[in-house]
Amino acid sequence: MREALDDHPNCNCGIIGVVAEDGNIVPELFYGLRVLQHRGQESAGIAVFEEQINCKKAMGLVPEVFSSEELSELSGQVGIGHVRYSTEGASALENAQPIVASSIAGDIALAHNGEVVNADELRRELQRKRWAFLTSTDSEVIVRVLANEIIKTRDVNQALKEFTGRLIGSYSLVLLVGERLFAIRDPLAIRPLSYGRKDGMHIVASESVVFDTLGARFIRDLRPGEILELTPHGVKSTRLPHPNNSAHCMFEWVYFSRPDSVLDGRLVYDVRVKIGEEIAREHPVAADMVVPVPDSGRAHAFGFAQALGLPLMEGLIKNRYIERTFIIPDQEERDIGVHLKLNAIRSLLQGKRVVLIDDSIVRGTTMSKIVKLVREAGAKEIHVRIGCPPIRAPCYLGIDMKTRDQFAANGRTVEQIRDSLGADSLEYLTIEGLVRAISMSEEDLCLGCLTAVYPVQVPGERLRPQRRLDLFMERVDSEAETKASQEVRRQL
Amino acid sequence: MREALDDHPNCNCGIIGVVAEDGNIVPELFYGLRVLQHRGQESAGIAVFEEQINCKKAMGLVPEVFSSEELSELSGQVGIGHVRYSTEGASALENAQPIVASSIAGDIALAHNGEVVNADELRRELQRKRWAFLTSTDSEVIVRVLANEIIKTRDVNQALKEFTGRLIGSYSLVLLVGERLFAIRDPLAIRPLSYGRKDGMHIVASESVVFDTLGARFIRDLRPGEILELTPHGVKSTRLPHPNNSAHCMFEWVYFSRPDSVLDGRLVYDVRVKIGEEIAREHPVAADMVVPVPDSGRAHAFGFAQALGLPLMEGLIKNRYIERTFIIPDQEERDIGVHLKLNAIRSLLQGKRVVLIDDSIVRGTTMSKIVKLVREAGAKEIHVRIGCPPIRAPCYLGIDMKTRDQFAANGRTVEQIRDSLGADSLEYLTIEGLVRAISMSEEDLCLGCLTAVYPVQVPGERLRPQRRLDLFMERVDSEAETKASQEVRRQL
Amino acid sequence: MREALDDHPNCNCGIIGVVAEDGNIVPELFYGLRVLQHRGQESAGIAVFEEQINCKKAMGLVPEVFSSEELSELSGQVGIGHVRYSTEGASALENAQPIVASSIAGDIALAHNGEVVNADELRRELQRKRWAFLTSTDSEVIVRVLANEIIKTRDVNQALKEFTGRLIGSYSLVLLVGERLFAIRDPLAIRPLSYGRKDGMHIVASESVVFDTLGARFIRDLRPGEILELTPHGVKSTRLPHPNNSAHCMFEWVYFSRPDSVLDGRLVYDVRVKIGEEIAREHPVAADMVVPVPDSGRAHAFGFAQALGLPLMEGLIKNRYIERTFIIPDQEERDIGVHLKLNAIRSLLQGKRVVLIDDSIVRGTTMSKIVKLVREAGAKEIHVRIGCPPIRAPCYLGIDMKTRDQFAANGRTVEQIRDSLGADSLEYLTIEGLVRAISMSEEDLCLGCLTAVYPVQVPGERLRPQRRLDLFMERVDSEAETKASQEVRRQL
Amino acid sequence: MREALDDHPNCNCGIIGVVAEDGNIVPELFYGLRVLQHRGQESAGIAVFEEQINCKKAMGLVPEVFSSEELSELSGQVGIGHVRYSTEGASALENAQPIVASSIAGDIALAHNGEVVNADELRRELQRKRWAFLTSTDSEVIVRVLANEIIKTRDVNQALKEFTGRLIGSYSLVLLVGERLFAIRDPLAIRPLSYGRKDGMHIVASESVVFDTLGARFIRDLRPGEILELTPHGVKSTRLPHPNNSAHCMFEWVYFSRPDSVLDGRLVYDVRVKIGEEIAREHPVAADMVVPVPDSGRAHAFGFAQALGLPLMEGLIKNRYIERTFIIPDQEERDIGVHLKLNAIRSLLQGKRVVLIDDSIVRGTTMSKIVKLVREAGAKEIHVRIGCPPIRAPCYLGIDMKTRDQFAANGRTVEQIRDSLGADSLEYLTIEGLVRAISMSEEDLCLGCLTAVYPVQVPGERLRPQRRLDLFMERVDSEAETKASQEVRRQL
Repeated sequence: MREALDDHPNCNCGIIGVVAEDGNIVPELFYGLRVLQHRGQESAGIAVFEEQINCKKAMGLVPEVFSSEELSELSGQVGIGHVRYSTEGASALENAQPIVASSIAGDIALAHNGEVVNADELRRELQRKRWAFLTSTDSEVIVRVLANEIIKTRDVNQALKEFTGRLIGSYSLVLLVGERLFAIRDPLAIRPLSYGRKDGMHIVASESVVFDTLGARFIRDLRPGEILELTPHGVKSTRLPHPNNSAHCMFEWVYFSRPDSVLDGRLVYDVRVKIGEEIAREHPVAADMVVPVPDSGRAHAFGFAQALGLPLMEGLIKNRYIERTFIIPDQEERDIGVHLKLNAIRSLLQGKRVVLIDDSIVRGTTMSKIVKLVREAGAKEIHVRIGCPPIRAPCYLGIDMKTRDQFAANGRTVEQIRDSLGADSLEYLTIEGLVRAISMSEEDLCLGCLTAVYPVQVPGERLRPQRRLDLFMERVDSEAETKASQEVRRQL
Repeated sequence: MREALDDHPNCNCGIIGVVAEDGNIVPELFYGLRVLQHRGQESAGIAVFEEQINCKKAMGLVPEVFSSEELSELSGQVGIGHVRYSTEGASALENAQPIVASSIAGDIALAHNGEVVNADELRRELQRKRWAFLTSTDSEVIVRVLANEIIKTRDVNQALKEFTGRLIGSYSLVLLVGERLFAIRDPLAIRPLSYGRKDGMHIVASESVVFDTLGARFIRDLRPGEILELTPHGVKSTRLPHPNNSAHCMFEWVYFSRPDSVLDGRLVYDVRVKIGEEIAREHPVAADMVVPVPDSGRAHAFGFAQALGLPLMEGLIKNRYIERTFIIPDQEERDIGVHLKLNAIRSLLQGKRVVLIDDSIVRGTTMSKIVKLVREAGAKEIHVRIGCPPIRAPCYLGIDMKTRDQFAANGRTVEQIRDSLGADSLEYLTIEGLVRAISMSEEDLCLGCLTAVYPVQVPGERLRPQRRLDLFMERVDSEAETKASQEVRRQL
Repeated sequence: MREALDDHPNCNCGIIGVVAEDGNIVPELFYGLRVLQHRGQESAGIAVFEEQINCKKAMGLVPEVFSSEELSELSGQVGIGHVRYSTEGASALENAQPIVASSIAGDIALAHNGEVVNADELRRELQRKRWAFLTSTDSEVIVRVLANEIIKTRDVNQALKEFTGRLIGSYSLVLLVGERLFAIRDPLAIRPLSYGRKDGMHIVASESVVFDTLGARFIRDLRPGEILELTPHGVKSTRLPHPNNSAHCMFEWVYFSRPDSVLDGRLVYDVRVKIGEEIAREHPVAADMVVPVPDSGRAHAFGFAQALGLPLMEGLIKNRYIERTFIIPDQEERDIGVHLKLNAIRSLLQGKRVVLIDDSIVRGTTMSKIVKLVREAGAKEIHVRIGCPPIRAPCYLGIDMKTRDQFAANGRTVEQIRDSLGADSLEYLTIEGLVRAISMSEEDLCLGCLTAVYPVQVPGERLRPQRRLDLFMERVDSEAETKASQEVRRQL
Repeated sequence: MREALDDHPNCNCGIIGVVAEDGNIVPELFYGLRVLQHRGQESAGIAVFEEQINCKKAMGLVPEVFSSEELSELSGQVGIGHVRYSTEGASALENAQPIVASSIAGDIALAHNGEVVNADELRRELQRKRWAFLTSTDSEVIVRVLANEIIKTRDVNQALKEFTGRLIGSYSLVLLVGERLFAIRDPLAIRPLSYGRKDGMHIVASESVVFDTLGARFIRDLRPGEILELTPHGVKSTRLPHPNNSAHCMFEWVYFSRPDSVLDGRLVYDVRVKIGEEIAREHPVAADMVVPVPDSGRAHAFGFAQALGLPLMEGLIKNRYIERTFIIPDQEERDIGVHLKLNAIRSLLQGKRVVLIDDSIVRGTTMSKIVKLVREAGAKEIHVRIGCPPIRAPCYLGIDMKTRDQFAANGRTVEQIRDSLGADSLEYLTIEGLVRAISMSEEDLCLGCLTAVYPVQVPGERLRPQRRLDLFMERVDSEAETKASQEVRRQL
């Protein structure tokens, strides 16, 4: 089990779907998953259609799960893939995706990124209908609801609408229904999903970096509530009923996504630099240098340093070979873990007023060790600046931050947190600053973990005021879409 | 993948269930499965109840699947275990058992040995009811049918009767329904299942050798159609409707079971010795020595040699370290596989008239190599005697012999087979002789693979005439049963 | 680490050497080592000459050490191989052979079976000459002494004589000196080594079963003190000075070698059957049946039963899948180890007078458990007959029996041992009986572990009277030898 | 085998030695090696003295070689450790260090970083003295020369001087001679080695970051030609004859060492920033942004950007999970390797004049792919600036750059290289600039790979003019040294 090395939460997963006119798309799935590896390191899986749906999934990093030999045993012109973040416990393998179900309506394979708030309720509902479940996973619930709808409606498009109508929460999905490939993004577009293309090949993936690596062209993000069917000959788009506003997860820009991904029109790197600029504006400080917490705070620190004209110094160095903090028992008390992972450069920091920049604080345990490290290296003043407002509430929509108790900001003032970190000053970016950095309306973002107000109904939590549903159901013809996207492409 | 080293078919599996008054029964499950390892080497699994059902299963031999550390993570006072024979293909892991299902009626874990003839029909029936399946295994079908019945009847005992009433085929089952442990043997008692006891502990297992190893006492075999609930305080027995006759698989005595197991009252070793005696009576031969094919023909050869007063010689020696016939590509043509596994002792065999004894011939490929081996070692005459009548028809009830084409005896006379083996004479035991050796009525045995007449309805095959069902449903009170079994024990 | 499952001692090793006119002899080395696997399961290695000596060796069984891929990376027309028995400790890998040394005289690779009594003395002597050793193994000592002699004499044949003249103890050796292949057997021929041939290929191996498996013809055993050079075109033989008598290890026939091997003219199986007959003559007993301890006592039991006209019954059944007695901690007190490995058949043994036959008793711990097992299965009388006289003294010549304290027979009468085993009677074969069974002069056998009189000088132990050395140095011409051996072959 | 992901050469190794007054120093060795992991990822090893020298070494990363369990089997108050860079071929394991030798003078364990130019000559010399070698490694040569000298002189200090007098080349060594721990740096101090201390513990390590992580204090670098004996009570220093000038490898600052290490008084990070400033001064360019090649060019880029007042942009993003470029065969032609590892951010780069900064160019293959990547991302101009002068000559002193043919700069003008890279401009730092950045006299640096003039005699290469040897042999008393170093520490 790979241990968390810092207190960043886990993201839900990375997904990909590929269809080609001819040839074998397994290499694209494999390389695409390797590019999405930062979204999940616990398990990986690929399902392809070739006469039937064949699925291979296991625990481990993508190249651990798929040896050359095993890859060569899979082939197909259409398929999906999935990487999953690290979870605890013995049931890890049953969580691996894609999940495959066979029913009277044929085989279905499904890979999802997100979290369905009403999964337990749907499970109980199916159980009341005498269904037995083989796993305790949400995926089994979701795939059964879907299979049910397909059988009921005997019309896949209709079934997908009914199906998504049953789900409350966040979901980016790729689906094989027999040999048909669908991609779905929830009506609030909480988790990312984007569409790209290369000669004779249509691709959806969690992040646009996949297209860069595969030599494909990014076309566009999936729209909120969009169901995209990808065929070798083009795409067909349908829209689910969706509100006027979205609820993009702000944490994708702050931390999860790769800096070179473009999410809903915003380059992640750009947003992070702007976050640094915003916090510099809100909370400037007289200092000798700005030091990023590597690697998560690097872009934010650049923006901060540039905005204040302060030198950016790599005062903290990361050991690139420490992926597991394997600790010898009697060494535990020595805090050697953080020292193995990070080192502070005494000769840069000694006697200096240092601004430490990181993207966020969740539990605060790592930041408190870092402040101690920098203090021991002789820094005269340590000013901590955080690119994300205080995280005070659980995420129910796909991030592994579940209990209020774990949050450094839970029931504490910023001053109390500063005191516990041992810093000379501590400032978080405001929500307004964050929104400005993302340059999107606050009403189009999910800020649940900051505000405890959520874009979907979560039992026991406050719901943000909903705008009216846009009930107009768009249907874009394949040809038109393809042409439209070709134009978009030309403009890029 | 462990390759088959000979042409013996695979048996279906080994199962075990244990409940104790206190303490942890995982060691008994672990050691019991190790004793049953000869019944399956592909995968192993254990499910125990402790607050909930916890299951661990994986590919490999029992000690490969369960390290000391992993065993220590499992505990409970009641549980079941399973070993599975080797199958081909990528879906092997999904075949591992126990299989666990959760429904509105609670959790169920199931391990089975046998083959359900109408599994596909049941699957289609459930699929027509809009059920989706996550695996292509019979086990999922069975567990769903069972869960369904439990939900429907809300009475486990009633549900078990309804459930078994749906199944056509062979099945010895151990079940956890929540924390309740049940063992079921099909109404024809095709596959073995026996019950034993040690202080404060009740045990069911595929073979009685498990009791010997665990220091428990064998009490009795499960009766045809018996449902046995095992509790820490005794057992409760119910009988399903069952015909007057059983259909015990003759191949358990001939080959599958360990010689030291007692199956339905017959010590396997004894039966094999008697088989040897019977074939000696039916097909005596003037020879200098009797040579068993190790290890499968050893007891049969002893009976044969003793009956004819011929010396028994170990003229064929087995390499105990060859579990896999890993062959270097360019060596394939040299038939090195059989030479690695078996060696003929020239100085014993040279110039001699040799009787080769084996338990059975399925495909005949190995026997033909052995005859060649013995011939090359200089034997003057080679007389092959086989302890099982010619296998001519598929088994649909739990043995991996599915296609008529694969059988040496398919469409060939004994003379033709003898010719293809290159032996000087070849004789099979007759069905009558086999029945005498087992000393059980022919009408209580399944001889489907010999006669092409089956004890259950198999589409496209002949059904043996059925006696009337004994519709009297027995219910034996726990206390009475316990006392009765104590008496049985005293007599043993 | 594979644990010993019984109290049989470990043998030193198995060796093989092959040279061919053309083609690649690596498959022969690989399959030959698999056949010799019973002589050592700890490590395996192959060294071949192709432009230079290439060696691959590692811990594990032969097919674990050499995957298909790794085998394909090795090739050559001449090479040697080695399997090693299980040892304790972290230094196991450095014990793996062949050992390779490069010097001004070129590369040497060496694999040996045996034990050099004066290894420490030779080591100290070399150390006094300022040599530093990289391992603590005897092999390094031996290879350095050899390299030294080659450099000194600049004549390989002369060097081999000088070299062997330095060694005291038992040694069967295969050597690559550059591309020249030599096989050497010590002047007392303590450890086995035999020579065989197939078209264009010359082979030496520890046991003749290798030839059977490789489709080669056994030609003859190496003579005491013989140095055989194997070339693609024939063999050249030289004799070292050697006494008139040999000292073949009797334990090779009693236990180590495969029953189908022919050692120094005696088929191992035959010797074991005769051992059984001899002990029947010396110590007959009125009994109902003879039960072998599987698998080691099987042939002995056959001879015993036949001599007395008693039925041979397989009353003890071995679990073929228990290669490691992996014990769950809290189960240790239950003696489950022996039960997992062996089971006694109650219905055969109950109320019976049983003769238990095994090949030998070293520590006696396993036999005492077996007697208990058979007693618990209801045997009325248990008579233990052992095919080897009491082992009372250490072996210094290649068997892992080093300390007198460990022997059951150390300082105890047979009656005392019988009492500790819990048997009704216990009898060992006499030395005279053993010698008769082997049908070789007692003066040509090493009986050191029985008599504490050794064929070579061991510090602190008694030396058997030496006959005069036969100082005549034979040299057999390659052509003559080849013809001679062809004649021998025709006669076989 | 981990593949090289870029065209940086391999460094020789990382070494560490620790002695303590009491307690077990294995944790320090383990964590120290993990910190030095960037210096070698192929194999790792630890040797400790506890009654005797115990050594454990194997292929793999430090935590792969040493599991918790295996670490717990090693303990001692004095020991050494080693990590080795990746090499090709089957003989990899024999290259693992420490190497241990036992001789009449006791046991020696040795770990070295560097390259001995006359190793083959020394080997031949020893072979002429009839020595046989068990491996083809330089380490065996070195340890034998050392053992020889110890035996000859019977005075370890004297032996170490004689021994080092025999070696030509670069060597930082840690040695256990029995329980005595020595550290040696060659007279030109080519490879780094530094000394640190924590309560009751004395430590030498390749880089000062080890002290930071272990909570120890850096005391000083070893002096050129210094032999340091570390005891629990202090250190004793002796100097070998050494020239007035050193020959520190410039590549340690340019690329090998961690940025947070201080080598011979220069913080690596500082030197890299200054390199960036120097090249900005030498080769300024009008551009929109400076983009580092991650991670090797980051500090250099910072210096460059700051010096010219240009914005530093992370236009190239590294995939942190790609440690192996495992390529599916039919994908090879697509250059997917570099795309998996690096991605160029189109929206940052498009239409921009970009300065790409990396630390060095060896073969140029990766840089040419990067330029292509940036070009495809739309950069208008690409100006490459390299922080190290053109590498034109082999390194014989510890870096894996052996053949002139492999160098991009071999026989080509900068203009030709620029053309092959496809860049708009290409400039290397001058030697003068590099020397200024390191701020050390050119005469104290080894610039052999830049100038083809070497500080030691390499057959066929030019030798730089040697200053006279400083023949004064210093001997610093342990107490004095300890006090002196305490003062140094106070000043830090």
